[in-house]
Amino acid sequence: MDTLTPLLPILRPDLAVFDAARARQNQLTKPPGSLGVLEDVACRFAAWQRRVKPEALKPAITVFAADHGVAEDGVSAFPQAVTAEMVKNFAAGGAAICVLARANGARLEVVDVGVASELDPALPIVHAKVAKGSANLAREAALTEVQLTAALEAGAAAARRAIDAGAKLLVAGDMGIANTTPSAALICAYTGLNIDVVVGRGTGVDDAGLARKRVAVAAGLARVAGRNLSASQTLAELGGLEIAAIAGFYLEGARLGVPSLVDGFIATAAALAACRINPGLADWLLASHVSQETGHALAIQALGLAPLVDLKMRLGEGSGAAVCLPLIAQAIALHNEMATFLEAGVSDGL
Amino acid sequence: MDTLTPLLPILRPDLAVFDAARARQNQLTKPPGSLGVLEDVACRFAAWQRRVKPEALKPAITVFAADHGVAEDGVSAFPQAVTAEMVKNFAAGGAAICVLARANGARLEVVDVGVASELDPALPIVHAKVAKGSANLAREAALTEVQLTAALEAGAAAARRAIDAGAKLLVAGDMGIANTTPSAALICAYTGLNIDVVVGRGTGVDDAGLARKRVAVAAGLARVAGRNLSASQTLAELGGLEIAAIAGFYLEGARLGVPSLVDGFIATAAALAACRINPGLADWLLASHVSQETGHALAIQALGLAPLVDLKMRLGEGSGAAVCLPLIAQAIALHNEMATFLEAGVSDGL
Repeated sequence: MDTLTPLLPILRPDLAVFDAARARQNQLTKPPGSLGVLEDVACRFAAWQRRVKPEALKPAITVFAADHGVAEDGVSAFPQAVTAEMVKNFAAGGAAICVLARANGARLEVVDVGVASELDPALPIVHAKVAKGSANLAREAALTEVQLTAALEAGAAAARRAIDAGAKLLVAGDMGIANTTPSAALICAYTGLNIDVVVGRGTGVDDAGLARKRVAVAAGLARVAGRNLSASQTLAELGGLEIAAIAGFYLEGARLGVPSLVDGFIATAAALAACRINPGLADWLLASHVSQETGHALAIQALGLAPLVDLKMRLGEGSGAAVCLPLIAQAIALHNEMATFLEAGVSDGL
Repeated sequence: MDTLTPLLPILRPDLAVFDAARARQNQLTKPPGSLGVLEDVACRFAAWQRRVKPEALKPAITVFAADHGVAEDGVSAFPQAVTAEMVKNFAAGGAAICVLARANGARLEVVDVGVASELDPALPIVHAKVAKGSANLAREAALTEVQLTAALEAGAAAARRAIDAGAKLLVAGDMGIANTTPSAALICAYTGLNIDVVVGRGTGVDDAGLARKRVAVAAGLARVAGRNLSASQTLAELGGLEIAAIAGFYLEGARLGVPSLVDGFIATAAALAACRINPGLADWLLASHVSQETGHALAIQALGLAPLVDLKMRLGEGSGAAVCLPLIAQAIALHNEMATFLEAGVSDGL
């Protein structure tokens, strides 16, 4: 399985362009470094786009929806029916990510890769259901190899559609009741972090639910322990269909030279999986927010990333990343539009 | 002096509307609290505007420029001429705050309240020069009482112009070579914080410059020690013309029922002064970013505020606040436009 699309080569960002962009930053009418992380963000986009002045982002947001067998173990505060109900809310424009996509002028696409119930084919989403949810990872492999491959490819196809539409920045979102459980399992499996620091309350489970989540994750990890699995096999054993699709989305974006802005806990688990499958991806990811979910900060760290903001969010759907889109747009606008000391006739203090 | 405009009564935000907005947040299609600080931001605007669904912000940014006598003590990395040069850069649209104002569709106004050199009257800014810079606070009162009153009033007039233009959120910015020195002195005077934790490198002074800043601030504080000054008198002794104007801007905004988003170190010093002059102001301020300037985090804390973001910025001009405008706009859009559980037919998990 590791020889398919996810393993196609990923180019490095252009470091010479990064340096040229850095040199430009130092000529802009401001004390050097005074725009903080916005300077680095602009230079990274320069390196990604191979243009000292990066083009507008035309961001594209794709929300992948799927259900999870482990929901039967009582790991979520919400019933499984909410996954399908929220997909309809996405289609009707009433969910948080819809509002944020509109606010940012971003393309928004919703993809059913594994919602448990049948969705009306007339629903204006991409119907790419691989299976009616995953199996219960606490007892068996969440996905078969065939399902994993199909989910990765559904994500890759979504990335291609977004890039064809002009996107210079990708955002993946998730919808799937119970999906913090497989995400926690994946983070533990890929990083070796302890269950106690990774498993959190998700949408808000009570103490008993939290205990059940820990039991489920521990059971899943025990099932795979000592089996010397590849990164893809681990994703199949402990993941989920939307998580695999997000991994495929990131990998295909990077292969096509378009970076992704990583959202919260589920997206970060998918990014970890994708980076273990193809380490070249790491250069093409930017962290957005650190969520309130226990373990998210550590998972971001494991990716070698640093979040832009901490707004105490924990919603998923890509919402934390979407909220950060204007920060990136402003970083690029400052980089492109500010006058240099020479242009403005301002003394540079040197 | 304390009986003038700055002491006119400030109303309280409407707490009943805040509660109604909070109730709406809990009905939106998301786990309760999952939008983190964005929920509270939206509810605060509801209370400020006395509307459960706040109106669009139409933000207005006013940059106040002035020079400082203490610059002669070598406390800045840049020559004093840069103040006037940057005012021209603002007028030409090449400075960071110009780019950010355009990106946010914000009204931008630049006010000369005390630039040392004569500016061309044809320059498209508001010409309201109170004096050709302040006196050196290390040796004498930075401002006379007459100058302080005029600067406060110049800020108040700017707030009225912004509000007349429809602004529902005000941002004040500063431009003034050496102005982290009076700002540090004010923060020390109002909070009792130690010079060592408040005085920082500003635009980037070297160790010798930092030592000179500390000496200047210590001299200013020693000059006023034990004199039992009012908040306004302290502002006149240790402040500056743009700092006083920002204080007047915040106070007049609050009096007219329009909140301000506080920028970095200089703006926070002005906010502290204004809150000591009229404590009713505190309810009408929102912190934006915490800057890299030593002591800014502590000064924000002294105001009882919490910053939205930490982007390692240290530019001034109102830039840190301007960068946060889209976060606030998105918070309000989410609050106003998301569907409720009932509207969307989504199970609420209860």
